[in-house]
Amino acid sequence: MSRDHFLQGFLNPKSVAFYGANNKGGSLAAIQIMNLIKAEYSGNVYPIHLKLDSVMGFKAYKTLSEVPEVPDLVVIVLNSKMVPQIFRECGEKGVNKIILISGGFRELIDDRKNTLTEEINEIANNNGIRFIGPNCLGLFNNWYEPNNKRSSFNIAIWERLKKGNFSIASQSGTLSSHIWFDPENIDLGLSKSLSVGNEANIDLVDCLQYYKDDKETEVIGLYIEELKRGKEFLELARGTTPNKPIIAIYVGGSKGGNRALQSHTGSIAGDSKIYEAVFKETGIISTDYVQEFLDIALILSNGIIPKGNRIGIITNSGGPGAMIANNAEKHGLIVPELSEALQEELKTMLPSTASFKNPVDVTFDMNLPYFYITLPEMLMKSGEIDAIFQYGVVGFQDVMDDYLKNEKIAKYAEFQHQSEEDMDSLAEKLLQLTMKNCQKYSIPILYINPMSFTSPWSKRLRKNGALLFKLWDRPVNALAKVCEYVEYKKKIK
Amino acid sequence: MSRDHFLQGFLNPKSVAFYGANNKGGSLAAIQIMNLIKAEYSGNVYPIHLKLDSVMGFKAYKTLSEVPEVPDLVVIVLNSKMVPQIFRECGEKGVNKIILISGGFRELIDDRKNTLTEEINEIANNNGIRFIGPNCLGLFNNWYEPNNKRSSFNIAIWERLKKGNFSIASQSGTLSSHIWFDPENIDLGLSKSLSVGNEANIDLVDCLQYYKDDKETEVIGLYIEELKRGKEFLELARGTTPNKPIIAIYVGGSKGGNRALQSHTGSIAGDSKIYEAVFKETGIISTDYVQEFLDIALILSNGIIPKGNRIGIITNSGGPGAMIANNAEKHGLIVPELSEALQEELKTMLPSTASFKNPVDVTFDMNLPYFYITLPEMLMKSGEIDAIFQYGVVGFQDVMDDYLKNEKIAKYAEFQHQSEEDMDSLAEKLLQLTMKNCQKYSIPILYINPMSFTSPWSKRLRKNGALLFKLWDRPVNALAKVCEYVEYKKKIK
Repeated sequence: MSRDHFLQGFLNPKSVAFYGANNKGGSLAAIQIMNLIKAEYSGNVYPIHLKLDSVMGFKAYKTLSEVPEVPDLVVIVLNSKMVPQIFRECGEKGVNKIILISGGFRELIDDRKNTLTEEINEIANNNGIRFIGPNCLGLFNNWYEPNNKRSSFNIAIWERLKKGNFSIASQSGTLSSHIWFDPENIDLGLSKSLSVGNEANIDLVDCLQYYKDDKETEVIGLYIEELKRGKEFLELARGTTPNKPIIAIYVGGSKGGNRALQSHTGSIAGDSKIYEAVFKETGIISTDYVQEFLDIALILSNGIIPKGNRIGIITNSGGPGAMIANNAEKHGLIVPELSEALQEELKTMLPSTASFKNPVDVTFDMNLPYFYITLPEMLMKSGEIDAIFQYGVVGFQDVMDDYLKNEKIAKYAEFQHQSEEDMDSLAEKLLQLTMKNCQKYSIPILYINPMSFTSPWSKRLRKNGALLFKLWDRPVNALAKVCEYVEYKKKIK
Repeated sequence: MSRDHFLQGFLNPKSVAFYGANNKGGSLAAIQIMNLIKAEYSGNVYPIHLKLDSVMGFKAYKTLSEVPEVPDLVVIVLNSKMVPQIFRECGEKGVNKIILISGGFRELIDDRKNTLTEEINEIANNNGIRFIGPNCLGLFNNWYEPNNKRSSFNIAIWERLKKGNFSIASQSGTLSSHIWFDPENIDLGLSKSLSVGNEANIDLVDCLQYYKDDKETEVIGLYIEELKRGKEFLELARGTTPNKPIIAIYVGGSKGGNRALQSHTGSIAGDSKIYEAVFKETGIISTDYVQEFLDIALILSNGIIPKGNRIGIITNSGGPGAMIANNAEKHGLIVPELSEALQEELKTMLPSTASFKNPVDVTFDMNLPYFYITLPEMLMKSGEIDAIFQYGVVGFQDVMDDYLKNEKIAKYAEFQHQSEEDMDSLAEKLLQLTMKNCQKYSIPILYINPMSFTSPWSKRLRKNGALLFKLWDRPVNALAKVCEYVEYKKKIK
């Protein structure tokens, strides 16, 4: 069980000591304590500082030995040369979990005499210490207090994120922590994030082991530069993907990429073909793009996994419908021609300019209940498709509100503006049943509104559970990869 | 010359009559007049309406014959069955340019008896009328009044766009008009946009002919479902790309895609391999993605075209640097190891944790003048690279401002907040020389700030001319395609 795994303690400390933190807003360690404050962390915080009496409002201690309890976790952000001594102090105090943020270890490839890694490993082994890093950004646990929406244990991520079921383990600090700025990614709820850095003591395999059994993790994201325990990884991945999808970015195999990696974590990357083969064999969803990584995670974490790769396209514009169909087929999805019977059924309800074959193009007809409820339901019920793309879920009132800012237009245009409440209940009415149908038929809908992601109507759709994208490029590619995973699961059954 | 081309009149009418417009905010024709109002169009507007005395504040006329002048252009948004009669009225009045928005022509493939297209073509030919459409969204000319920043001739696009040198011709109305909502695309200035619809009378070849010689067009974007005049297109494209790049989306070749096209414009799409061969032979930059279409246009319209495909990467984080290098090489770009001499030079100025080989990883060292000015300049001067990706142009004050919203953090964190003016002048100081160097060395820099595109620092960078992206996925792919175009130009020389 995940609760017995040693990483459980790293993610749920009741007390944390910090080496290297001060009150300077710009310093890395200060930012980590600021993250804790922002995350409303309820445990004890003990800054260790030779000169300061307090750091960010917490009483500071000159040495670890003075701290009134044995902290569950120690975080170190100091020059690498000071680290062995601190490890010894931790051993003496009885600390057994350290996060070592500092760089300056084996990634300095020109410094042949740098044996710091060996030194700290020995101290750790002799003192029963496990440590994450060096050269990492720490970690994040959104379920530290499951019942407190605003709280987390977080030293790594600058933003407050929605609690979710997606967990990341990453050999890059940026990929574990700094991909959440974009307001367009806020619908993806995060469970946990672990930045493993150089993996001197704890590696991706440990993290995957933990996530495999973690009840708060349903979808796993990995950023990989090198796998040190290839065999263990392979077995573990094979045992994980039947229940929890794994999305992986592997960076390596190119000359420039390898050069970047050497100086980054000191690892030598393997042939990308070997990695791709491992991913394929174990059902890992592979991507080169961080946005696609997040898009796939968003779709999967939603919990509705399509049964196959036949897609239905509902659109109110020909071009996007054609592009969706074209890209979908290029990426291995099927856009089946709908049956005669279903086409006849659709014909009775759409204008003569509409198209019924798939894509279903309603043209300018925007009968809202029909567009949002009836049409998707007819496709779902038919059994002819496994997932739906719906283009053109535009908030017409948002469009008009923008025009009405112009005085002349406001003076002459006849437009019945609806209240916020009416719009809220309209969105609820249009989405609620359809969201239930998605569950009922196990058919996800990927919605596309070309207007801003944070436009009022987009917000309303998202609030009601819609998986929303701004353009039609990304969701097609992401769903295609999800469907490859579905195919894998079918094969191994 | 472009000024003698018949499309010049379509794009620069001094007067326009509208069939089908009313005061209902939700109707398509009303939106077109609303676009004209918003665009501060200075010409005469004549709505034709049997019952209304005025439409959107413009005096309405019961018939075209009553309009006090011969309008330069007539726009029709009425049921297709009424269109032949209106064409006849236009002929009688002496009108010779029509935009036919209405659908209901050959795209209704189930309606075999629909000969409306033949009918209106005959009337047009007999009366010397040229027309755009049917089944289109009209057009946009941002240079209608070159000296008025706010003004354009626009019936198609809902947003007010920056005047630029990118022009679009599209067989999809959405691709010509509705891809501008995203605030992240506002740096791409638009020159003109033509939605050609079914091309009953005017086609993409006409548009390309016009753009080829148009002095306000430097970069051309095409959305193609079918080319009716393949030979003419090929010759014209070959003659255009040596001076003006063409970016094309071709949708066709897949079953679902073709089904979408048949019901959209009635065309039968060709084999995508033939199209790809034509694009390659004529140096057309091809993409399947609308966002990439816009990204490539943004880079090209900036006017700094790299001389080759060797890229330099400047980063303050290992992961993104590695991903950029990896994806770049996967897409045919070269990430050369920097010369010993250049590495030595870089070493003297960066901390020991930095990497100098390419990617150049400054790690946490953020000496701003060095990061924004010296480092790019050293790479540019070296002659070892042709373009630069710079990751991590984060506004640290933006980060801190966000943290300081928390009362406890605000109470304890020491941070010297700089004034808006100081930040403005900082950005100017950091960017101005570098932007000049980009011109001087013909080396573009693609900047990446993972924080919001509209964050204060991002805005400041963009205001000073930076080509900014939010993540590192898109700019790599877009630049790779730009570099393929560069290779093409070298070959044909």
